[in-house]
Amino acid sequence: MVIDPPYLIFLGDVPDALAAKTGVGIVDWRPEWCIGQLRLEGCQADAGIPDMTIADAKARGVNTMVVGVVNAGGVLPPHWITSIVEALDAGLNVATGLHVRLASIPEIAEAAARGGGNLHDVRFTDERFATGKGNKRPGRRVLTVGTDCSVGKKYTVLALEREMRARGMDADFRATGQTGVFISGRGAAIDAVAADFISGAVEWIAPAADPGHWDLIEGQGSLFHPSFAGVSLGLLHGAQADAFIVCHEPTRTTMRGVSHALPSIQDVIDMTIACGLLTNPEITCSGIAVNTQKLGEDEARALLKTLAEKHDVPATDPIRFGVEGLVDRLETMAGKA
Amino acid sequence: MVIDPPYLIFLGDVPDALAAKTGVGIVDWRPEWCIGQLRLEGCQADAGIPDMTIADAKARGVNTMVVGVVNAGGVLPPHWITSIVEALDAGLNVATGLHVRLASIPEIAEAAARGGGNLHDVRFTDERFATGKGNKRPGRRVLTVGTDCSVGKKYTVLALEREMRARGMDADFRATGQTGVFISGRGAAIDAVAADFISGAVEWIAPAADPGHWDLIEGQGSLFHPSFAGVSLGLLHGAQADAFIVCHEPTRTTMRGVSHALPSIQDVIDMTIACGLLTNPEITCSGIAVNTQKLGEDEARALLKTLAEKHDVPATDPIRFGVEGLVDRLETMAGKA
Repeated sequence: MVIDPPYLIFLGDVPDALAAKTGVGIVDWRPEWCIGQLRLEGCQADAGIPDMTIADAKARGVNTMVVGVVNAGGVLPPHWITSIVEALDAGLNVATGLHVRLASIPEIAEAAARGGGNLHDVRFTDERFATGKGNKRPGRRVLTVGTDCSVGKKYTVLALEREMRARGMDADFRATGQTGVFISGRGAAIDAVAADFISGAVEWIAPAADPGHWDLIEGQGSLFHPSFAGVSLGLLHGAQADAFIVCHEPTRTTMRGVSHALPSIQDVIDMTIACGLLTNPEITCSGIAVNTQKLGEDEARALLKTLAEKHDVPATDPIRFGVEGLVDRLETMAGKA
Repeated sequence: MVIDPPYLIFLGDVPDALAAKTGVGIVDWRPEWCIGQLRLEGCQADAGIPDMTIADAKARGVNTMVVGVVNAGGVLPPHWITSIVEALDAGLNVATGLHVRLASIPEIAEAAARGGGNLHDVRFTDERFATGKGNKRPGRRVLTVGTDCSVGKKYTVLALEREMRARGMDADFRATGQTGVFISGRGAAIDAVAADFISGAVEWIAPAADPGHWDLIEGQGSLFHPSFAGVSLGLLHGAQADAFIVCHEPTRTTMRGVSHALPSIQDVIDMTIACGLLTNPEITCSGIAVNTQKLGEDEARALLKTLAEKHDVPATDPIRFGVEGLVDRLETMAGKA
């Protein structure tokens, strides 16, 4: 799935900022792709970029309108359909992460046929993946893994990409979830891929590359999450990661959506290596990324220092303190290789 | 997905017995459900049950025609469509494991609407699964795991079901693959479930039951298979197995479809326990099932003796030597619990 930037970010008339999380995330990480936002009357979210009509967006070179909002129940309200039809009639593509396929709505399917724009349903994939082969391929790969879901796996690899590119390194964020696909303009939401093809989808997402190239692969779930461990394991084997970074949220007591306790960071390191050896005998932990948002600064720094010493890898909060140490370690690893 | 027996087994005009493997497997394990077979001119397969027209099948109480064959490319040849339409017009349901949805073929969709029969596409599932919760639920569960794909996981649990029922035990085979779904009349092909719902699907397939009830859950893939390990792990957590049986084919040198070597049986036991502890701290290996078809009888018996001693569990070839020892061990375990 390839989505053409630049984007017009559609925020509809969502009642709060949280409902526009996807749209705001795209603007955070790809400001250069986000020409404007389209907000309907009553919209309570703001991505902080110019408000723009569809006609203006088209005139300024926008290729795709991204529906960067979620609606209760994942359905498309009729007045959003009107905007989508207008965008298609203007010749734009439209991309969404909604639970319903755009083409299943007759007005939208007709408008797409008329206008010539493409429809991208990021939660669905029509890509025919092969099953994973598990063979090591050229290029370097870093994967974020976690003690739980929603602990900063996507933001960590995005922060790595920004820092590595600033250093002139050849690095690409590789998306495995819907927001990530909008941010990278490519990828697949692997939670929606049929179970047999998880690893194969990741081999497609992060294909063979130059030996000096870095793929920074967005992790999903946790090997210790009862609901999603299978996804995490398939992702690990598809990634054949040379290095992994453990992501963690230190104040959480039970795993998201279930009653199970979080594993320790050491548990995650040990299990990731025990499993990952199958497809990459060189796999190694190269850092720890902690979301310290709920801790005071002193407390956060003390925790990171303790973790770095205990596990003998750099530990940071990527958003609060940057990822210089994580990238230094990756450069050192690469120098050795 | 619930499929109503009794069945008429449709074998079409397949060129050899292998193409009718699914149909023959259903007859092997559910002879009481299989009233007859429908073969077209030139069919080279024979499930060993009476040939029958659709009208005769209907008259004898058949509820569902099962398309128990695969065609090259998974497509439906036009003359098979004719038979399917005839079955639907007679008021039968039709079930298939083909790669194409029956309802996507207009003649079939129209005939189903006319006749009132249901269409079952076992490779697709419209069941809306929840994500797995990972909570231990009442009832006993046995899962087959493997050193590879296609090493006898389905046949082992089917043999267990037959033996346990013969002893008056309350036991049900739980299908996770397409042939298994036809054999049990229920279940889901979990390789086709979206990745996020593997564990949840298995929780639905093997739901809470009486404390003395046995669910015998068909395993898939291997925790050591680079392509399918994610499926196997999701299945393990959905099953929350009390006991697992390791299935193995001793002459195989590389895993199916990839170039990786097979893990040892001990590797599989260790990894299954290391991972399975998350959702069932009592998980234990209760036996080894070896497909010894390529070994002479003495060699087979010697291998099984060695394995039983080495791993301190019963070891057998379920088809060649029966599963009495495996069931004895499960009864002993249950007595202790």
